[in-house]
Order: sequence, then structure tokens, then C-alpha cells
Amino acid sequence: MEKGDLILLDFTAKVKDTGNLIETTILEEAKKLDKEDPDYTYKPKLIAIGEGWVLKGLDDILSETEIEKNTQVDIPPEKGFGNRDPSKIRLMPIRKFGDKVDKLEIGSEIDIDGRIGIVRFIGSGRVQMDFNHRYAGKTLEYNFTIIKKLENKMEKIQSLVDRRIPQGKEKIDITVEDSTTTIIIPEEYFLMDGLQIIKKALSNELMKYIDNLKKISFVEEFKSDKIDEQKQATEPEKDDIKSAEPEKDDIKSAEPEKDDIKSA
Amino acid sequence: MEKGDLILLDFTAKVKDTGNLIETTILEEAKKLDKEDPDYTYKPKLIAIGEGWVLKGLDDILSETEIEKNTQVDIPPEKGFGNRDPSKIRLMPIRKFGDKVDKLEIGSEIDIDGRIGIVRFIGSGRVQMDFNHRYAGKTLEYNFTIIKKLENKMEKIQSLVDRRIPQGKEKIDITVEDSTTTIIIPEEYFLMDGLQIIKKALSNELMKYIDNLKKISFVEEFKSDKIDEQKQATEPEKDDIKSAEPEKDDIKSAEPEKDDIKSA
Repeated sequence: MEKGDLILLDFTAKVKDTGNLIETTILEEAKKLDKEDPDYTYKPKLIAIGEGWVLKGLDDILSETEIEKNTQVDIPPEKGFGNRDPSKIRLMPIRKFGDKVDKLEIGSEIDIDGRIGIVRFIGSGRVQMDFNHRYAGKTLEYNFTIIKKLENKMEKIQSLVDRRIPQGKEKIDITVEDSTTTIIIPEEYFLMDGLQIIKKALSNELMKYIDNLKKISFVEEFKSDKIDEQKQATEPEKDDIKSAEPEKDDIKSAEPEKDDIKSA
Repeated sequence: MEKGDLILLDFTAKVKDTGNLIETTILEEAKKLDKEDPDYTYKPKLIAIGEGWVLKGLDDILSETEIEKNTQVDIPPEKGFGNRDPSKIRLMPIRKFGDKVDKLEIGSEIDIDGRIGIVRFIGSGRVQMDFNHRYAGKTLEYNFTIIKKLENKMEKIQSLVDRRIPQGKEKIDITVEDSTTTIIIPEEYFLMDGLQIIKKALSNELMKYIDNLKKISFVEEFKSDKIDEQKQATEPEKDDIKSAEPEKDDIKSAEPEKDDIKSA
């Protein structure tokens, strides 16, 4: 496997000492440990080899691992989330916590002074906060299988798009023609948070990991609702579901009300 | 002139009593009154007749005015910015103004409690704020000329685009093919505030004011910087300006650093 190769990886990560689950891509594993997250889509993860998309300890071994071979590896802190830094443990006065004082409980994570820390100790008027990463100083245990290496250009593009715009796989239309890729963004994503940043980052990734790609066009199409009106007129009304469709007035409200006078 | 007709309008608006300028589209007028705004592009304004893009008093008369005929009209408050509402004048304690206390000056506009008001009176510990519109209760004097009525499809589209994306006229590539219009957004607008809302509003306006328009595609193109590199390699370096171009590392920094572990 070479730097920049795209692979699909199934893995389960645990804290070695305790066996506590950190993350898994496999639904059965999550179920077995009673840690199933209903909002998460369990499926192999796209990884670019050697590019720092995963922890260093895992990245290093991935490049030497055969496809479909189940592998277990221990990752020491220095190749994982780093060693614990004692200077990141602080005693803080309780009054600094303001409204968050109700959340003070040993082990809970609290965002304070712009950093997230773990509550280690609560004394009279003072709290010991630990700003080390939750898994700093821990040896991690990874069990993984490289499901496949992506070879097909279209599959690579789709996987990279899917990583940036989750749940879009069936909805985003992608066409590849010579050195140009056209990505049609569906209307439901038009107001997605950070869409413009995502397009920029995605185009950088596509250029980097796909050979001979020179231009990427993102297209957003708006269609006339007049077409829908004609369709509705010729179709007999079948049930009440139709009334849930947007009416013309909804669209009108997006228009400016009045040209505000500049100096007003 | 009919409702929905697109016109280009030159106008100067003043407060009738005082002759104070409210707004003008004409550079010479602004200069004459010593009110030139260097950041404003003076040019006739695009108006859709009868659609509330301008004050009611102006909208009403525009539909009856001949093209190129200079016209003057007085607009009473009820067809302008409304009558003054005494209940919108409030006495407020000075402490409510917090940091803004330094701005307290008769006649200044202050944003307080989420509304903009004008300071009318400052007493001991109390301030009289007027939340009426600055021009409420005023009769306005408009002097205007309809420069032309837009008839050409392409000119209409360009004017509507230009209204929503100012300064874009020479940079935005627009093509019209049958009932589809394609608008290529230049890279400098990719991170413009509210771009996604602008696209939605603009497509609504285009569909409304242009006949037989069924689809609008907004296209954003990203091009490989490899092309630039090749170009640079064949071109001799001429001066130091080239070093101002982004280097590859700048682009890399837009990539994710590490796939953060989900539960971490």
C-alpha cells in the first residue's frame, strides 16, 4: 500500500487497560457491547494511507497490512493521543464555572475558558480540571480489516464526496468526462452549514487523490415550480398528502420586501 | 408600464421640508450636495414595477410615467415611511445603554434592545429614544427619470444578477440556452456572506420576471493548480510578484488534520 492510496477500513478501537469502546465501524460490535448509536451509520471508513487521517500508530501499520487480513495492534500513547501532561491539570475556583456549576460531577466533560476538560476532583470552592485528551496516556487496542483498496476512479470520487457530504450517496449526481468532474448538489443541501467550505476542501481532496482531474464543477439547479403546477393541474387529487407541498406564497416570502433607502 | 416590467430608474430623494438628501443614483447630484459616497456605485437602479421594490408612493406613479420624462413627485408619509407613532418614543434609564453610553448624543442612532432608535433628549439618568423610522412623518420629494424599460432577455437576466451580486457584472459568466440559464460564479464569491440565500432569492426572481425560464444552474468551478505549476515551469520568472501566489501548502491546510475519534 502506498501513501495516498484510498482504502475502506473496518475497525474497532478500545482502551487496552479497561476494554472500554472508543469507536467501531461495525454494527455487530457496537450491539455486542451495548453501545449502538442510532444516529451513526456503521460502515467501513474511507482512509487515505499515510495522510494522517487516522492516528499515527494505525496509519503506520495500515501501509504494511494485506487486504482482508484481520489484524490486531496495540498503539502506545506516543503514537495515539499523546502522553499525559501534568501541567494540563489545573485547580480552578468554582465561581469560574458560572451557570455550569450544576454540571460539576466527577468525570463529566465541561467546556471552560474555551477548552474542554474533565472534572477530576471537587473540593470546597475549588475544582480540579484535567485538560489532557480523554485518551492521553492510554494504550489503545485496534482490531481492523482493510476491506478493499479503491481502484476505480468513479468509486474513489463517490467515496470522497460521501465522506464530506454524508447521507448524500444516492442523492448526489456525479459525472466524469475526460478531466472534468461535475457534482450536482441536491436542493436539500443548499443551506447546509459550511457548504462552501466543504466544496473547497472536497475539491482539494479530489484533485489530490484522483489522477488526471483538472476541473471540478459543483452545480446547483433551481427548477421552475410552474412545471409542478401544470402537473398538478392534469393529475386528479388523490389524497390530502398533496396539501403538504409548498404553495407559491412560501416562495414569495424569500423576496426582498422593499428596497431600503440606502441612508435610512 | 405593467406590473412586473423591469425598468432602470435614476432618482434623487429628499426630505421636502429641509431639502436634506435621502438618496440619489446620480453622481453629479451627490457631488452638488457634497454628499458623495466613495463606496457607492452611482448608476440607474433596477426596479420591478408594482412589486414593492420602492416606496408605495413612487411605485404607484412609476407605472403611469413615460420613459425619459423627468418627473417630480411629493410623497406623503402614508405612502412613504409611515406616520410618526408617539408610542414608539420611550424614556429609558441610562444604565441600559452599557458600553454604548459614550455614543449618547442628540440625534445619533443607537441599537438598543435589538431595535435602532434616535436619541432625542438626555436627562439625569434617563434618555428619550425615538424608535420611529428616521423619515416617518416626513413628506418626501422624488425627482426621477425612467431611463429605459428592459426588453431583452439577456439584459433582464444580467440586471437581476447584478442587483443581487454587485460588482459582479464583468466577472459572472451567464449563458442562456432554451429555457435553461447557467450562471458561473467566480471563485472570489465562493465565500461571500449569504451566498446560498442569494442564489435562492435570485433564482426566484429570475423565474418570476423572465418568461419561459424553467431551470437555473449555478456553477462553481475549481481548477487544478497543477495547470498553474506547469505554466510557471515554462515561464521564466519575471519579478517578485509571483511569490505572492499561494503555495501548495496553503491548500493543504484546508484538509482535515486527523479523523477525530467519534466518541472522543
